[in-house]
Amino acid sequence: MRISELSAETGVPVATIKYYLRERLLPEGERTSATQAVYGAAHVERLRLIRALVDAGVGIAAARQVIEALDDPPENPSHLLGMAHAAVSPPIDGDLDLAAAQALIRRWGWDPNGCGPQQIAGVARALDGIERGGFAVPETTMTAYLAGIRQMVEAEIDAIPTASAGDAVRYVVLGTVLVEPLLLALRRVAEELVSGERFGAIDT
Amino acid sequence: MRISELSAETGVPVATIKYYLRERLLPEGERTSATQAVYGAAHVERLRLIRALVDAGVGIAAARQVIEALDDPPENPSHLLGMAHAAVSPPIDGDLDLAAAQALIRRWGWDPNGCGPQQIAGVARALDGIERGGFAVPETTMTAYLAGIRQMVEAEIDAIPTASAGDAVRYVVLGTVLVEPLLLALRRVAEELVSGERFGAIDT
Repeated sequence: MRISELSAETGVPVATIKYYLRERLLPEGERTSATQAVYGAAHVERLRLIRALVDAGVGIAAARQVIEALDDPPENPSHLLGMAHAAVSPPIDGDLDLAAAQALIRRWGWDPNGCGPQQIAGVARALDGIERGGFAVPETTMTAYLAGIRQMVEAEIDAIPTASAGDAVRYVVLGTVLVEPLLLALRRVAEELVSGERFGAIDT
Repeated sequence: MRISELSAETGVPVATIKYYLRERLLPEGERTSATQAVYGAAHVERLRLIRALVDAGVGIAAARQVIEALDDPPENPSHLLGMAHAAVSPPIDGDLDLAAAQALIRRWGWDPNGCGPQQIAGVARALDGIERGGFAVPETTMTAYLAGIRQMVEAEIDAIPTASAGDAVRYVVLGTVLVEPLLLALRRVAEELVSGERFGAIDT
């Protein structure tokens, strides 16, 4: 198909497709003349993936890293996961206090050195935001967070397809970034419904 | 203290403080002359709250709604929760398919009408993003998400302070928006650590 048809098929404007081609997020089409190229089903799929990443808040440079990992995946699923996470994480701020974040990881029974420093920094940044906002997570709630998250993640890792590295990285990258809004949305729903059970229903 | 001291105390630039005053996020100080006012500890606390909300991605209009709820809280904690969630949620998109979101809520054993329509729309939007990204959450993983989130939320609602409506709304608003980054960060840490246990450690 031509670029105009690729645009119609995916709903992505032609100018945006050209931008993704220039940024090497999307591979070139097959040239049919000096000014024309044709695109196939792989371009449609790649374009949908790019849009999903961008809609999930992943920047262009990080999206390129993710796509490079898809095109040339490493062998070990843990390495994929670390790379995928690194690509979609902000850089580490210099002045974060990591002690409280490391203590939470130890409460899980894990060594904090077993995961990437960006992820520990992410926990530290979140704890810092909570504290600066004048909030404190009660101990019983934190214990429930650790138990609930561990239960969810064990199921996630069980489901990683290990037959093909390409499938695994796609699963890990998309499962990380695309599922985050779902977890937050389900939490808000559950908060309203549990709260309704305890205190009386919300008028809707 | 004067506005310059309030700025030094909180690290918020004077121009930003003036913007929050104009936007009615921060109450006026006590006037000491036509051009000067003094600010107290309540302004410091409010300013820290505003920064926490803004840093958590809450827009100015939504932050104003949250702060109005803090200043004039409703009686029922469920109503607080609904209001807080509505303030920090995007508007409902017209063309969302709500059926899959409602089905997930029914899997929890709840009536989808028991929570605000914005929250169901949030789940529907997240499911839509997952599908457009070419990803699918396996059934066993979804079951673990529902169980894990319910467990976390029961503990959260148990911990809502009910003695004072002001305390309750502050708890609910901050507990919603400030804790979200923590849950996502802890999930990524757990993913790397569980993955390391299963497939071998990540090189860090």
